[in-house]
Amino acid sequence: MPQEISGIAASHGIAIAKAYVHEEPDFTISSSEATDPAAEIERLEGALSSSREELAAIKDKTEQNLGADKAEIFAAHLLVLSDPELLDAVKGKINNENNNAEYALNEVTSQFITIFENMDNEYMKERAADIRDVSHRVLGHLLGIETGSLATISEETIVIAEDLTPSDTAQLNPAFIKGFATNIGGRTSHSAIMSRSLEIPAVVGTKEATNSIKNGDLVIVDGIDGHVVINPSEEMLAAYRKKQADFQEQKDEWAKLVNDQTITSDGAHVELAANIGTPKDLDGVISNGAEGIGLYRTEFLYMGRDNLPSEEEQYEAYKEVIERMEGKPVVIRTLDIGGDKELPYLDLPKEMNPFLGFRAIRLCLEQQDLFRVQLRALLRASAFGNLKIMFPMIAVLEELRQAKALLNEEKDKLIAEGISVSDSIEVGIMVEIPSTAVASPQFAKEVDFFSIGTNDLIQYTFAADRMNEQVSYLYQPYHPAILRLVDMVIKAAHKEGKWVGMCGEMAGDEVAIPLLLGLGLDEFSMSATSILPARSQLLKLSKEELASVAQNALQLDTADEVEQLIRTEYL
Amino acid sequence: MPQEISGIAASHGIAIAKAYVHEEPDFTISSSEATDPAAEIERLEGALSSSREELAAIKDKTEQNLGADKAEIFAAHLLVLSDPELLDAVKGKINNENNNAEYALNEVTSQFITIFENMDNEYMKERAADIRDVSHRVLGHLLGIETGSLATISEETIVIAEDLTPSDTAQLNPAFIKGFATNIGGRTSHSAIMSRSLEIPAVVGTKEATNSIKNGDLVIVDGIDGHVVINPSEEMLAAYRKKQADFQEQKDEWAKLVNDQTITSDGAHVELAANIGTPKDLDGVISNGAEGIGLYRTEFLYMGRDNLPSEEEQYEAYKEVIERMEGKPVVIRTLDIGGDKELPYLDLPKEMNPFLGFRAIRLCLEQQDLFRVQLRALLRASAFGNLKIMFPMIAVLEELRQAKALLNEEKDKLIAEGISVSDSIEVGIMVEIPSTAVASPQFAKEVDFFSIGTNDLIQYTFAADRMNEQVSYLYQPYHPAILRLVDMVIKAAHKEGKWVGMCGEMAGDEVAIPLLLGLGLDEFSMSATSILPARSQLLKLSKEELASVAQNALQLDTADEVEQLIRTEYL
Repeated sequence: MPQEISGIAASHGIAIAKAYVHEEPDFTISSSEATDPAAEIERLEGALSSSREELAAIKDKTEQNLGADKAEIFAAHLLVLSDPELLDAVKGKINNENNNAEYALNEVTSQFITIFENMDNEYMKERAADIRDVSHRVLGHLLGIETGSLATISEETIVIAEDLTPSDTAQLNPAFIKGFATNIGGRTSHSAIMSRSLEIPAVVGTKEATNSIKNGDLVIVDGIDGHVVINPSEEMLAAYRKKQADFQEQKDEWAKLVNDQTITSDGAHVELAANIGTPKDLDGVISNGAEGIGLYRTEFLYMGRDNLPSEEEQYEAYKEVIERMEGKPVVIRTLDIGGDKELPYLDLPKEMNPFLGFRAIRLCLEQQDLFRVQLRALLRASAFGNLKIMFPMIAVLEELRQAKALLNEEKDKLIAEGISVSDSIEVGIMVEIPSTAVASPQFAKEVDFFSIGTNDLIQYTFAADRMNEQVSYLYQPYHPAILRLVDMVIKAAHKEGKWVGMCGEMAGDEVAIPLLLGLGLDEFSMSATSILPARSQLLKLSKEELASVAQNALQLDTADEVEQLIRTEYL
Repeated sequence: MPQEISGIAASHGIAIAKAYVHEEPDFTISSSEATDPAAEIERLEGALSSSREELAAIKDKTEQNLGADKAEIFAAHLLVLSDPELLDAVKGKINNENNNAEYALNEVTSQFITIFENMDNEYMKERAADIRDVSHRVLGHLLGIETGSLATISEETIVIAEDLTPSDTAQLNPAFIKGFATNIGGRTSHSAIMSRSLEIPAVVGTKEATNSIKNGDLVIVDGIDGHVVINPSEEMLAAYRKKQADFQEQKDEWAKLVNDQTITSDGAHVELAANIGTPKDLDGVISNGAEGIGLYRTEFLYMGRDNLPSEEEQYEAYKEVIERMEGKPVVIRTLDIGGDKELPYLDLPKEMNPFLGFRAIRLCLEQQDLFRVQLRALLRASAFGNLKIMFPMIAVLEELRQAKALLNEEKDKLIAEGISVSDSIEVGIMVEIPSTAVASPQFAKEVDFFSIGTNDLIQYTFAADRMNEQVSYLYQPYHPAILRLVDMVIKAAHKEGKWVGMCGEMAGDEVAIPLLLGLGLDEFSMSATSILPARSQLLKLSKEELASVAQNALQLDTADEVEQLIRTEYL
């Protein structure tokens, strides 16, 4: 009997293959006692050391296959493995309570997991999941359990699981794993993000996939509409094969656009750029036909290590990106750290509301030594192509003026030292704080460009933490209030002859694209895999027509009405 | 030799009297051991019980003298005294480690204090101060130390201290305590807030008052300009007596305005209303000549207790306020709880960013049983005067529509039950979220009024937690971006024939008042003690002239430029 279950479409495409139901190994610990604490400590150290080696290898492999930002989670796992608070607690239990290593480890990590899970917040829950994942890796070594079963799959398979941990997804070989379906998770959960990077069709949050599907069942994963079909009939199979072919055809069409400019049906040019986290992301950028880098997030240079990156290291990274883009624009954002993104070696204070806290430019203007090193590295790299420097989290003009003054000081020093610096570096800001959007007429006089950071702008504008499930209904990119802020920013910039980009997720969203074109956005920066579909969409749109549609959208009451307007007429 | 030290002017006025240097009693614990755990538990329970009685008495007294919001801190202290986590830890140390009660208590509370203090955040530091204050009260009983020395002062005195705890300030008798000066604290620290409520001149944050001043020194506290003069010369004394007389004269002038309307020099009427937390605050409201209640915060009804207040309790409180205001407008805000304001009995999840979290209307629309009880109580009370209902934290129109639908459902039910409900209740919203200000043209069609909540609006607009010292420089009420949002809201409301109030601290601020008048604000709601000075200021201002000044201010670059403009011309 065919059966169909539904979930959240996490990654586009249709996959058809036999199911492999991935079960968590049994980590039950049968005994808690040990007689020789020193031997247990030694077992623990051995398991930790093996786990560290594995993680380092997985991190390298992920970095090569998927880029540094996707590998960063394993740097976080490595940090868990060297967290003194956690390890001291485990060793304490071994030494003082005569526990064996596996019992002590499980007790301590379970406590941490409970604390994070009870926080009822997407971000903290992900941290709990990380600790569980690391803990299982170490327990696997202590208990002699094989945890790498996904890596050995060597025929076309659809993986069915309760959830897939970062360690699980790192093992997936896209040559054999055609798709996956999980019981839990949402569009922004780790497994969903990985499925998009791997370009594997996926449906998450089905609640019941592991109950409804048995090993060997024939399964269709429809990552376009969020369905999973189990043991389909012949007609269903035929229909889905057609859908799969149509999707492939569309992808092939997109691929033809890789060297094209992005020109609307009425002849307006917009720029489609890519967001990157590291030079390793450049291959995907180039193969997807980006016209520039709209956002190079420099945080990854600072993360997963225990000291600040030197000027030289930064210079090399920036230079590589600028050179490889061969004169195309490269917007590099200065350090956006602090708040929820911690650097252990900076020893920042805990904050009650980190999203409203001491981060990004606020921190850089106070820790000027750190900031000046980055500015010098950027200035030196500017000689090799078309660099644009962007400051994050600017809220008031004084911050912009101070940041520009520091940049100019370092520039003068370098020139005095005889080092060549481009004399045409554009300097701009992220518009991600409501005050900056509202005061954009003043800012426009003192910047070369704006880039609207919608992820933060939306959460501040609605005063709703986008990681907090209970208020996630307020993350409304299509809301007229957001469109009005975007409209204000674009009008203010154009009045002063400056250009406006957008580097939040909204820039690559098919509903938002017609509106943003209509509002006059000059540059759309998105993940590399969104560029060709966006180009294909934009080629068919008329900027002039959408200008009046967008102005009408500003006057609507709700985000739903705006979405309805676009879906009915322009999708 | 006369000497002068400077600090932060916390409460206006000039005080001249002999100094009393208040020293913290010595809480050194000489021994940690005890032989009879049961006896120590008994000693602990005795000290806890005496402390509870004292706190209950202090809470009542403070409630009568200063209103329920000022007394609320002692409800928090009482909660600390019954916190099972803390008490169990203390008893555990007594039982398992043979500690005596004072040692065990001190160890446990010190740990809590260290955790909160290390958070480097004004709000959490205040929590550390609360625990220290409670701990000292209990330790005083255990060690037989007299902690009430401030209460026995019976001649005119200026109190000098490192800091004044809530317990200290509750003891101050304004008949004898003419002023105070402390080493630490800022304008919003507990001691500063209390000095304003008590109308005692105070200078805080002098860093050195207790070092520079000896018992019996003649001291002048200048709470207008933030100076403390020690052993002044005859000329200095004469000059300050003159300043004191001038200040008194100004206060007398203000007092004459108590029954006046607030009419500007060019004949425009604005309404000056008061913010209250409980019916007990009404005496001050009436004696200060408020023309209405602009904000009745109903949170206090829900706090410092262990269950929800019944419909009847709420009805009685609302009715009392509405009746005593005799037909003048009373704006009651529905429950604004959640986020940092916790109700232990609601068991809300911990959040990573509580200021961007599940609170106020977001919570009420989900916990509808709780919300409907409050709406029924409000509707029943509406029959006794001029009630206006206001919803907090509205971000999108759907929330407003849902809240209004619930209100109408309850109204229909009451009418069906034969209970009388006013048929002219205005329904409005707080504008404290940027989206709501930006979308005010749409909201204006579906509300009867707006009240701009600047405390939150400012922190969201600049994405800066106002409790976080490291980003407090971004709390900028005079910033052109804030003024533009206020301007948008007022224009949108007036276009639909609706009125606009403001109930944040900004409404009572002498620099903001001319700007707000110029932008066309209809109602200014503030703490009762600010009403007469505000009225005095407004009588001298021309609304027409300020309308163009305010429009110019919108075009300025920075908050400093705006402040400069007003201070030079209008103060």
